[in-house]
Amino acid sequence: MSRNPQLNEKGALQHLLTIEGLPREILIHILDTAASFINVAERDVKKVPLMRGKSVFNLFFEPSTRTRTTFEIAAKRLSADVINLNIATSSQTKGETLLDTIDNLSAMHADMFVVRHASSGAPYLIAQHVGSHAHVVNAGDGRHAHPTQGLLDSYTIRHYKRDFTRLAVAIVGDVLHSRVARSLIHALTTLGAPDVRVVGPKTLLPAGVEQLGVRVFHNMDAGIRDCDVIAMLRVQNERMRGALLPSEQEFFKSFGLTPERLALARPDAIVMHPGPINRGVEIDSAVADGSQAVILSQVTFGIAVRMAVLSILAGK
Amino acid sequence: MSRNPQLNEKGALQHLLTIEGLPREILIHILDTAASFINVAERDVKKVPLMRGKSVFNLFFEPSTRTRTTFEIAAKRLSADVINLNIATSSQTKGETLLDTIDNLSAMHADMFVVRHASSGAPYLIAQHVGSHAHVVNAGDGRHAHPTQGLLDSYTIRHYKRDFTRLAVAIVGDVLHSRVARSLIHALTTLGAPDVRVVGPKTLLPAGVEQLGVRVFHNMDAGIRDCDVIAMLRVQNERMRGALLPSEQEFFKSFGLTPERLALARPDAIVMHPGPINRGVEIDSAVADGSQAVILSQVTFGIAVRMAVLSILAGK
Amino acid sequence: MSRNPQLNEKGALQHLLTIEGLPREILIHILDTAASFINVAERDVKKVPLMRGKSVFNLFFEPSTRTRTTFEIAAKRLSADVINLNIATSSQTKGETLLDTIDNLSAMHADMFVVRHASSGAPYLIAQHVGSHAHVVNAGDGRHAHPTQGLLDSYTIRHYKRDFTRLAVAIVGDVLHSRVARSLIHALTTLGAPDVRVVGPKTLLPAGVEQLGVRVFHNMDAGIRDCDVIAMLRVQNERMRGALLPSEQEFFKSFGLTPERLALARPDAIVMHPGPINRGVEIDSAVADGSQAVILSQVTFGIAVRMAVLSILAGK
Repeated sequence: MSRNPQLNEKGALQHLLTIEGLPREILIHILDTAASFINVAERDVKKVPLMRGKSVFNLFFEPSTRTRTTFEIAAKRLSADVINLNIATSSQTKGETLLDTIDNLSAMHADMFVVRHASSGAPYLIAQHVGSHAHVVNAGDGRHAHPTQGLLDSYTIRHYKRDFTRLAVAIVGDVLHSRVARSLIHALTTLGAPDVRVVGPKTLLPAGVEQLGVRVFHNMDAGIRDCDVIAMLRVQNERMRGALLPSEQEFFKSFGLTPERLALARPDAIVMHPGPINRGVEIDSAVADGSQAVILSQVTFGIAVRMAVLSILAGK
Repeated sequence: MSRNPQLNEKGALQHLLTIEGLPREILIHILDTAASFINVAERDVKKVPLMRGKSVFNLFFEPSTRTRTTFEIAAKRLSADVINLNIATSSQTKGETLLDTIDNLSAMHADMFVVRHASSGAPYLIAQHVGSHAHVVNAGDGRHAHPTQGLLDSYTIRHYKRDFTRLAVAIVGDVLHSRVARSLIHALTTLGAPDVRVVGPKTLLPAGVEQLGVRVFHNMDAGIRDCDVIAMLRVQNERMRGALLPSEQEFFKSFGLTPERLALARPDAIVMHPGPINRGVEIDSAVADGSQAVILSQVTFGIAVRMAVLSILAGK
Repeated sequence: MSRNPQLNEKGALQHLLTIEGLPREILIHILDTAASFINVAERDVKKVPLMRGKSVFNLFFEPSTRTRTTFEIAAKRLSADVINLNIATSSQTKGETLLDTIDNLSAMHADMFVVRHASSGAPYLIAQHVGSHAHVVNAGDGRHAHPTQGLLDSYTIRHYKRDFTRLAVAIVGDVLHSRVARSLIHALTTLGAPDVRVVGPKTLLPAGVEQLGVRVFHNMDAGIRDCDVIAMLRVQNERMRGALLPSEQEFFKSFGLTPERLALARPDAIVMHPGPINRGVEIDSAVADGSQAVILSQVTFGIAVRMAVLSILAGK
């Protein structure tokens, strides 16, 4: 049996590529470490010296200001040096291969690569290639995984609900194209959530998704009924054009989260969204701005979770 | 009477959005604080620890390398962490609203937003929206205001002329489209300059500009005669195309600052310009490079003024 | 006789513009200083405080993520503040002259300008213009020079071969358009290498190149025979289109470095390349990934060499 490529020979985290297959203890360790960083952001001096002198490379082969910013802040609050590389506009266009680019940056003694790539699996390829002194964090690869998002979602759920083992969680929308959904499903099943549901039209749910341990709903009302957590997904406009979705209005009518629909969930249900939100497409403004939404807490916790991941990988 | 949105309940500066309506004492306090930072740039180690661990977000919804750079340097010399966000190419294109973007960044515990936006008033909207822990600095909004430019112009004038209460200042060129001109007019009238003039063709002076307390001249020679300070404005090429101006040559003939014209002002008059200069359009090279030009001193003082604004807002 | 514009009145390095004309002692001093920085990159905290509070401006008038990154890392590991300016997309488009841009940045108390420009000589112009407190490093200007590349190539050769005075070095490919080749030739002849060769088709060797003290070969096998060092140059695709080269396949057939050809050099010959490499155009993958290639060591040494140059210029 081959070793989990994310773990070193001692079973410690060497890379963070996907939540799938990560032991529960490692997830818990990340969440506990994140908890210890929460108050750093509230201090007068929002910095700890854990990664002083470390070089963190943000390798964004696909642009994402938002995700890049969260990693940049997390790394700077750990006192690391951050180098932003927008590779789309860089040496890739000069015909260099991905692995030659990585070799080159590794030779500059990079400690950490934060990788966003349009192709599923690219961060794996990089992780297999870099030496044992460097660490790779997947910041989103194709439709595959976005593990720090899954972790910050888990952190948020734990913060508000304490215990995963009694929860019903509905993941709503375009599950098919969503690395966020995949990562959250793996996190929840690993952490022991007994009732994970995916809710969406047939065209936007992957075939065989049940095999991930989730229940499938094509009806929104049934899907969110009595849930403790509703995790909305972002609808991407290009899907509309791709004819997988009829129109924004149609989608909102069937799967948009309105106050009326939210009332079907538990009274203390929380509403999550990875952002950026499309008001009036997947979520009604009254819900997005309402008391059950924890969307901005997710962002705050996301910084702490990324600090936790970076510092654990750095061996601190 | 509603409170000045830039001041907190104790009357201290909470945001810097415009010079209009700011009490004279606050302007003086900023200029005095800037004076204390002037020598930092001349030290061997050009840094003070006043903003260590603070997160300054440069939010540029309209590109401006020059202004962004001055704020980046000012913040780094105060030891802050700086995050540059070029929002034009970012989540705005994903359909997120401005205020959702701000909420998101606030949730990352931003301490300071430096905002450049093509729409007048955008920094106000942001200031009203952020929590009391965050501060907004307007780095130029539409035609409205560019308060740090007005402050650095004031600093420069005070440096060379000491006392505002005897000065004649001519502001020359495209006043209509100039946030720089507006901010300088408000600064000068607040600081007690008795003779502020705007000089330009009718098409480039705003209707009713006299109500700001300035005298209007359509003739350059008359406008700058016996002035202590000549503040040239940048002519923007797009105005030419927009038919508000005949041609660069025509403009220079009527309103360009030549050595001959400069001789009409006081012998010790200083010449200012916010940069970048158009040689041979609004200013002759002999003047731009001459002994009366203080254009580069403005840049130097601008760093100190921005350090002053950031550190005062940070409560230091 | 006019003074070397790179040296101050005491003969110390004031700017690094080209290797041509630099005294041998200065080259040796840079290489020795770089050697002292090699182990910084291997420490847990990869930083030294030599340039704390210094402002390094990366002025890239032509984009080069790779080179910019190496200078950014070098400066950050020296604890400097780094400001990245992509000037191509900046004020140059607003009609400002190059020297006005430089004056402006100098007025912000820049300590160091790292300049990449498409025009040969641009860094000279800047160096002549800045005051004595600022220093200019040429990071590549047109076809002219790329001195830190020549220095890191020299460092690499010294690391593997110890002594320059017995070496045969072949520089292979498009010498005509290569600033890398020019800088390496000047470095090698200054450091005493007795046999420097340039190898390439007539269309890609500059007329009169012999006058630089090199031997010319149009036949690859003859050119690399018994060499200690083979320095491959990058073939730029635009040359193909420009009809100076028949095709990638043709070029590889005549001048590509294959294992068979490499066997003609000394058994312990090293293979260098400035990157990014074109596999199958100028170099075979078996050579690029083989035991004689030192391409990634060049990158590692390049950081130390740039730290050496920056810290020497900063007077440390």
